[in-house]
Amino acid sequence: MVLDSAPLDVRADFPGVPEGWAYLDTAATAQKPQAVIDAITRAYGPEYATVHRGVYKRSADMTLAFEAARARVAGFIGAQPGEVVFVRGATEGINLVAQCWAGTQLKPGDRILLSGLEHHSNIVPWQMAAERAGAAIDVVPLTADQRIDLDAMAAMLTERHRMVALAHVSNVLGSVLDVRRAADLAHGAGAKILIDGCQAVPRMAVDVAALGADFYVFSGHKLYGPTGIGVLWGRAELLDAMPPYQGGGSMIDRVTFERTTYAPPPGRFEAGTPHIVGVVGLHAAIDYVAGVGLDRIHAHETALVRDARAALGSINSVRLFGPEDSAGIVSFAVEGVHPHDVATILDEGGVAIRAGHHCAQPLMDTLGVPATARASFGIYNGPADIAALVKGVERVTRIFG
Amino acid sequence: MVLDSAPLDVRADFPGVPEGWAYLDTAATAQKPQAVIDAITRAYGPEYATVHRGVYKRSADMTLAFEAARARVAGFIGAQPGEVVFVRGATEGINLVAQCWAGTQLKPGDRILLSGLEHHSNIVPWQMAAERAGAAIDVVPLTADQRIDLDAMAAMLTERHRMVALAHVSNVLGSVLDVRRAADLAHGAGAKILIDGCQAVPRMAVDVAALGADFYVFSGHKLYGPTGIGVLWGRAELLDAMPPYQGGGSMIDRVTFERTTYAPPPGRFEAGTPHIVGVVGLHAAIDYVAGVGLDRIHAHETALVRDARAALGSINSVRLFGPEDSAGIVSFAVEGVHPHDVATILDEGGVAIRAGHHCAQPLMDTLGVPATARASFGIYNGPADIAALVKGVERVTRIFG
Repeated sequence: MVLDSAPLDVRADFPGVPEGWAYLDTAATAQKPQAVIDAITRAYGPEYATVHRGVYKRSADMTLAFEAARARVAGFIGAQPGEVVFVRGATEGINLVAQCWAGTQLKPGDRILLSGLEHHSNIVPWQMAAERAGAAIDVVPLTADQRIDLDAMAAMLTERHRMVALAHVSNVLGSVLDVRRAADLAHGAGAKILIDGCQAVPRMAVDVAALGADFYVFSGHKLYGPTGIGVLWGRAELLDAMPPYQGGGSMIDRVTFERTTYAPPPGRFEAGTPHIVGVVGLHAAIDYVAGVGLDRIHAHETALVRDARAALGSINSVRLFGPEDSAGIVSFAVEGVHPHDVATILDEGGVAIRAGHHCAQPLMDTLGVPATARASFGIYNGPADIAALVKGVERVTRIFG
Repeated sequence: MVLDSAPLDVRADFPGVPEGWAYLDTAATAQKPQAVIDAITRAYGPEYATVHRGVYKRSADMTLAFEAARARVAGFIGAQPGEVVFVRGATEGINLVAQCWAGTQLKPGDRILLSGLEHHSNIVPWQMAAERAGAAIDVVPLTADQRIDLDAMAAMLTERHRMVALAHVSNVLGSVLDVRRAADLAHGAGAKILIDGCQAVPRMAVDVAALGADFYVFSGHKLYGPTGIGVLWGRAELLDAMPPYQGGGSMIDRVTFERTTYAPPPGRFEAGTPHIVGVVGLHAAIDYVAGVGLDRIHAHETALVRDARAALGSINSVRLFGPEDSAGIVSFAVEGVHPHDVATILDEGGVAIRAGHHCAQPLMDTLGVPATARASFGIYNGPADIAALVKGVERVTRIFG
């Protein structure tokens, strides 16, 4: 066990993770390797220029770098470059589909299927889309060990369901979805399926073609990359049929005051000057993560979760949430102590965890708690971080004992 | 004249502007001072954390920095922090208003007033909003010296006009709008006014209260700041009355599957993890620009434009566009030479200008050209850049002469 969860020997690459600090909030946002910071620094310095429009060499070079990043993203998830739309983050990706796809496809009486563990970003856009269309939302319950219950989903799906939107990995529980089965079920009912891959892409190899998804979204900042950049992947034929998103430069073919015609995807969905340096930084982040290896990262985080659950579970007053094989994320409660107090006391000991509803209030309602404490792991964590976490929780139990 | 357009002595602050390179595409995007790059590097390194949610100290500190940036933006444009919404850029800011304000306020038969020199980003969102609402668009013509004709606007405005949307400074011509008069005219007809301040904010002091605007948008990357970040300012009472924009984390008050309630502005319009480092970098950019002084920058760029127009105008085959007192931007044509060829030849001599329609195709139609060559100035330019530009254009005339 100690061998499995041993550090991946990358901690020195992360200037944001000093020795003695147990950063256990990677599910909120990941720290950045120096290689990403360096790529950003170069892109804002001697390489800086706009893209797609400049005739001069530096702008042409930056355009090549920008589109090379798109190709790198596509390769990383088993997609085609033309299917990769750059957005602000996963939240915007889902909103884009809820606006452009659902806005034209959903009819009154149609239904959308979500699950009981979704992040607000995979609930609220669908509520807004359903309200506009006169559609309704159904919620797949969780199994006893807090996974999305695909047997229940199979029984719930009807021909009125047009969209199924589910998290690949729960941001609270770490529960991993069998996306392939979920996609087959959705398609069997004639529905499309969108997967929120925020917590999956940094933690396991993802191939959208093999998974059978129709849309897949993730955020750069959770993948050890920059803030303000994310990816919406969509099947080419679905993107082709979608109307534009925002109006502006780059997304048009020809503008007159009488009539405007639009560019093909992905440009159609990328109005305005893009987050150029965010895209370049995301490329560097993917190179970094791929260099370490997603299979290694997955095995490492699985071991960290197993060790953390074993250690925390041995403390009498600790209640663990989520399945045993959760991916990189451990939510827990200390009996009689508010999670915010747990996090505050841990912070005093140099352990950074998250306490709150984690933007998943419906799940909190299901769990019967207002909030949880959540430790989430990243590429830079190791046994020392788990030891610090356990020591901190033991201190909590002493203070409140 | 030489004294006025002398460098502001800041060029050494910009690692993206090496000696010998005349970067004259600042209207597309500005190069970054080292102070901004350093702020970004720190924010991605030892200061990095998420905002608004973390209980631990580093996240609390980053939240303070994030909201301090909002206050700095507000102070920079004479607004209140609660009126500052962080968006991807000016394009998204206009789209947000076109979706959330126009989406609820525009009725069939209502009218929107734009001008003939608007950027696509201030045309297409309104076309989309008008189509949704059954509203119509009118276009204010230009004066003989290519400014927005406010006399014509006064004659055109009716009580059916609900929104007037105009550029503060034309991105093609540099024409400066008398925003105060335009706002008074709009308000006199009962319309709201949105100002696209992309080219104004880096070039002159802006006070939204003194200007009398209702909405004001600008992009960070044109203000010597990061990509992927921009600002929508709106009057508090207008923002308060607007429905949410995108659904997700941070923009909600309480989520259940039955009913979701929304946070007050600006949070209501900022779903998902924001572009944290973009916001921090924008703060540094504003500090930098304010440190140099916008009055100095404005005087400097006015002098550069005057010298450039005088020098280019003395070349026989050059046609100049825009008014004499344009702000920082000079569009021109070389008789018988396509602007792309002009730009390509200039690039060979180390002069970077833009050639194209500049996302303003309707203006190109009015000017009767498919494209223009555009030189635009920034804080780091000086007489040597103008000399290089003129030398390059002279070479163009020799090659094509």
